[in-house]
Amino acid sequence: MKLKVYADRMSQPSRAVIIFCKVNGIQFDEVLINLAKRQQLSPDFIEINPLGKVPAIVDGRFKLFESHAILIYLASAFPSVADHWYPNDLSKRAKIHSVLDWHHTNLRPGAAGYVMNSVLAPFLGRSLDSKAAAEAEKLLTKSLSTLETFWLKGNGKFLLGSNQPSIADLNLVCELMQLQILDEKDRLRLFSPYKKVEEWIENTRKATLPHFDVVHKILYGAKDKFDKQLKMSKPGFQSKM
Amino acid sequence: MKLKVYADRMSQPSRAVIIFCKVNGIQFDEVLINLAKRQQLSPDFIEINPLGKVPAIVDGRFKLFESHAILIYLASAFPSVADHWYPNDLSKRAKIHSVLDWHHTNLRPGAAGYVMNSVLAPFLGRSLDSKAAAEAEKLLTKSLSTLETFWLKGNGKFLLGSNQPSIADLNLVCELMQLQILDEKDRLRLFSPYKKVEEWIENTRKATLPHFDVVHKILYGAKDKFDKQLKMSKPGFQSKM
Repeated sequence: MKLKVYADRMSQPSRAVIIFCKVNGIQFDEVLINLAKRQQLSPDFIEINPLGKVPAIVDGRFKLFESHAILIYLASAFPSVADHWYPNDLSKRAKIHSVLDWHHTNLRPGAAGYVMNSVLAPFLGRSLDSKAAAEAEKLLTKSLSTLETFWLKGNGKFLLGSNQPSIADLNLVCELMQLQILDEKDRLRLFSPYKKVEEWIENTRKATLPHFDVVHKILYGAKDKFDKQLKMSKPGFQSKM
Repeated sequence: MKLKVYADRMSQPSRAVIIFCKVNGIQFDEVLINLAKRQQLSPDFIEINPLGKVPAIVDGRFKLFESHAILIYLASAFPSVADHWYPNDLSKRAKIHSVLDWHHTNLRPGAAGYVMNSVLAPFLGRSLDSKAAAEAEKLLTKSLSTLETFWLKGNGKFLLGSNQPSIADLNLVCELMQLQILDEKDRLRLFSPYKKVEEWIENTRKATLPHFDVVHKILYGAKDKFDKQLKMSKPGFQSKM
């Protein structure tokens, strides 16, 4: 039975898992769990993941959720996956776990918190929260700085000084890609001090083409939609028409 | 060269790593990094972990931080560690990664956020924040409920229906042990609906005795100190003397 990946490409860890499968020639069926329609809470999906979160996978009778755990499982279970994605070497593997753990409590709440509270909330029926956005921005810029000066130190093109990408590169870059939906000026303001981070995102994109661009297409489409709606909601918009 | 563990027993992930080493007969030198004295930011420790967090380890020339990553590394690198702590079986291992990932974004911010904002803050020179405490409590009770009904389902004594503890049991139980410093009434209010969680904490404690109690001793001492100071700061205390 083919691997099933339950995902919504609007979710950054969903995109990481889908790109990983495609890049590594893992055969799978993608099952859309539409978050905007709250399908993650449908009885059918709760059978797959009782905690109602995407991505989740079913491999035979084995069910799993949490994107880091899924990527580690896929890299270990599918022989087509090259070693650099999740090295057998104990020390290299440990460093990948370390940066993935760091991601959970730093880059992830920073990036997701900022996008939610500065742009996304109204599209999900919530209010923007400038105080929460400011707090998330602090964590996000601290995380970008830590990426630039610590995790990306050395001459390698990827995290931990490596010359080939690991599951951590893919997962963290997908996290940062959500910032594409910000206003261009705001995105540049956040990223411009971090040249190595920008290069690393591009290196990871290139290493996973064409799948990286194909899977992120939905995000660019969403940005156009958000831009239009925000423009229409701005005071004075009507009078300028 | 003997393994070095840089830790403060007042930190819950530090306690997990120390207990793990002791239970598994791993020889190590414990180096105190006193958080109350902000030694985690000292130049000597920044050499070990540039992000200034405990626990961290040095094994030969290999440096590592993040408690989950450390526990996985130790379980993999030291042959004395029994398989149940971090099973070789791919599916079992994947489930352990999944619960550890869940811990990062649920139980951990819930428990640590509640303790910080309802008790600990004044002892670290900050103010208590009742709004933040209420938010953390929501996440904590949701996490306790998920433990009770999902992660601890089945008849096993430990997470994922297992009959022997894994690194996830030890790490998550150490997280919850910090709630011991709460007022007894408050702790009972939070825990009493979750009988399986209470049993599981006791099962994990028993499986790791005597080390569990020895390493947590500092926490009970801290509770006495907090209780005394809180009592003295309460209005009317002087008049009752």
